[in-house]
Amino acid sequence: MIQIPRGTQDVLPKDTYKWQYIENQLNEIAKNFNYAEIRTPIFEATDLFVRGVGGSTDIVNKEMYTFKDKGDRSLTLRPEGTASVARSYIENKMQHDVNQPVKVFYNGPMFRYERSQKGRFRQFVQFGVEAIGVEDPLIDVEVLSMLMYIYQSFGLKHLKLHINSIGDHNSRAQYNEALVKHFEPRIDEFCSDCQSRIHTNPMRILDCKKDRDHELIQNAPIMYDYLNDESKAYFETVKENLTALGIDYEVDYNLVRGLDYYTHTAFEMMSSADGFGAITTLCGGGRYNGLLELLDGPEETGIGFALSIERLLLALEAEGIELPEPEGLDLYICTLDSQAAVTANRLLYNLRTNGVSADMDYKHRKLKAQMKDANRKGAKYTIVLGENELETKQAELKNMETGETKSVHFEEIASHLEE
Amino acid sequence: MIQIPRGTQDVLPKDTYKWQYIENQLNEIAKNFNYAEIRTPIFEATDLFVRGVGGSTDIVNKEMYTFKDKGDRSLTLRPEGTASVARSYIENKMQHDVNQPVKVFYNGPMFRYERSQKGRFRQFVQFGVEAIGVEDPLIDVEVLSMLMYIYQSFGLKHLKLHINSIGDHNSRAQYNEALVKHFEPRIDEFCSDCQSRIHTNPMRILDCKKDRDHELIQNAPIMYDYLNDESKAYFETVKENLTALGIDYEVDYNLVRGLDYYTHTAFEMMSSADGFGAITTLCGGGRYNGLLELLDGPEETGIGFALSIERLLLALEAEGIELPEPEGLDLYICTLDSQAAVTANRLLYNLRTNGVSADMDYKHRKLKAQMKDANRKGAKYTIVLGENELETKQAELKNMETGETKSVHFEEIASHLEE
Repeated sequence: MIQIPRGTQDVLPKDTYKWQYIENQLNEIAKNFNYAEIRTPIFEATDLFVRGVGGSTDIVNKEMYTFKDKGDRSLTLRPEGTASVARSYIENKMQHDVNQPVKVFYNGPMFRYERSQKGRFRQFVQFGVEAIGVEDPLIDVEVLSMLMYIYQSFGLKHLKLHINSIGDHNSRAQYNEALVKHFEPRIDEFCSDCQSRIHTNPMRILDCKKDRDHELIQNAPIMYDYLNDESKAYFETVKENLTALGIDYEVDYNLVRGLDYYTHTAFEMMSSADGFGAITTLCGGGRYNGLLELLDGPEETGIGFALSIERLLLALEAEGIELPEPEGLDLYICTLDSQAAVTANRLLYNLRTNGVSADMDYKHRKLKAQMKDANRKGAKYTIVLGENELETKQAELKNMETGETKSVHFEEIASHLEE
Repeated sequence: MIQIPRGTQDVLPKDTYKWQYIENQLNEIAKNFNYAEIRTPIFEATDLFVRGVGGSTDIVNKEMYTFKDKGDRSLTLRPEGTASVARSYIENKMQHDVNQPVKVFYNGPMFRYERSQKGRFRQFVQFGVEAIGVEDPLIDVEVLSMLMYIYQSFGLKHLKLHINSIGDHNSRAQYNEALVKHFEPRIDEFCSDCQSRIHTNPMRILDCKKDRDHELIQNAPIMYDYLNDESKAYFETVKENLTALGIDYEVDYNLVRGLDYYTHTAFEMMSSADGFGAITTLCGGGRYNGLLELLDGPEETGIGFALSIERLLLALEAEGIELPEPEGLDLYICTLDSQAAVTANRLLYNLRTNGVSADMDYKHRKLKAQMKDANRKGAKYTIVLGENELETKQAELKNMETGETKSVHFEEIASHLEE
């Protein structure tokens, strides 16, 4: 038997309502914050991710689905959304759009070849936003407040927003120098990844899961001390305005972004819900001031985040929050014989094309089984069609909640249901 | 500069509303016809499509994006949706679901490496439905009527529904025999594809674009003459009930489906709109009675269709139909200085999280330019914040349509907008 590829999942009919509910809510929030949807292809030229995500990252080195198409081009299933949005921004010259900044969101599948485990899939869905074309602490606050509101709007309570500043390019260069000086004398006590990171990207040593308890990590220099005055002022304004909005956050000096083009605000949203066992990252994001240039685009800056819908669903589960189930059918038509089925089929077409959700039995079940089916489908009303009804073109419309019935002409069913 | 992969497209923020509108409408229609959404992965085991779409098809032979993952499994980006739904049905044993028949829809990207041309992309979006678990002409009518209503609901008028019956397995075998007898003596006058089709799948010769004008195709035996009584009765019932619903159709004896598992009802929806130049196929579908068994599943039968959203958009364009543009912002806040911007930022958060769509200027533009921006964004109301307003916490709420203004306290803006 052919099976679903490892690390992927089917969302089955009984569960899709959750995804639809989440998507509708995200679309509504995006509309209120004035972010418009953008849709980019599922695959891109491999080079986009090598340059835009970074050749030194695990994503690019270990986790990409890369293949040649029949024209011998190297393509990669997108592992994240920001690089694609940046490519589209540059290709479509969005820096010249009248609407500035360019505020977009995306929602779709991403692909990473990772070991599969709970909440981690090889195909997963990300919702993300990008605001490109402005460097102003207020837009950072807008993005952070949107992120917080998204989670709160689903009823989540155990949220922890961690933020940090990586400063501008100068601050960052100074900090990297300090880190090299700090780690270099004893770098042979670190894992092999860190031994190469000290040359390519010393900040990522702070992130290392293997060496996290090493004393040199515990007492490493702190980014904040290397921020220049401008970077400090930027960070202070972000924090001040978050506080003014009543948004709780925690400054986390160890929160870094490995790639060169990240600057200023970096953040992660965590869940501390008991259901998770440990604190779990739900979402990450930050400001990128060099990404577009790196991809041969204009000198425009941006900020964004991406959240996984699978993780959001786990967070809801961990806090015991249930999303509202969809309403049942408006009407179920029971039929006593095959002639009645033909009539039911015709009535259905008329009802469904007039905005009524309705169905009938196609399995030639007995009336009792049909009624059971109607209940299972949450039908608010039922009618039963037999010889009599076909002759008089009248049927008893039964309200399944109150048990009330009313004799209704076939052509008036839709208008009765509207009331 | 890195470019979008050939044959794919970005749907840009200015156009996504069309896709959202179409999707919302399709979801609504699916709900009324009682089809629930299913989501399957973007890629599947290659073998699924080789078996489920067919090793003798162009799709499988020429058009698939096939690659090995890092675990050396052969995966393929899905070229169509039915095989994936069938795989999910079998794997999740949906024949045992209480809701029967299983009625599902899907909506998502598909991938075929074809020559790119207008309306034909290498990544395209299909909406499709499948009704599995019942063989009854009435469910065929349900599916066909849903298809017709989908197109009509967008206002399309120049629609032509072509239908045919391929009959059951026996009828089909007899017909194939007759075709071989008809073509064999002069098969060397046909293209090389047809010369191999006569052995693998003689019905597909009738579909050949190269040989379509050959006299042997013109006077080939007609499927209908080989239908046994049961198959004829099935077809008559489908046609009779379509007529009863007022659905126009044309019987097209040359409409065949190449694969062995297709049986009985086959159909295509065409557009005859002037804008297309020639008649164009919008959608195809049919009944498949052997597909699940072919994939080692249960002996259940199904019927479905798949339509391309790109083609639907072209059809709307060809008939000059414009989809409704989204509403503008509820409120735009103009600011006279940076302190006002901070206040605007705070007001926005409160408004947006109370269901108001709102935005402000982040580009430090002059008031006139901000007002222009407000108009461009279709703002229904504006306020201007300066020193005075910050002091009194009152602002003039201006109705941009009528020009009326009203002095409103900051905390009452949301409730005023609700009215």
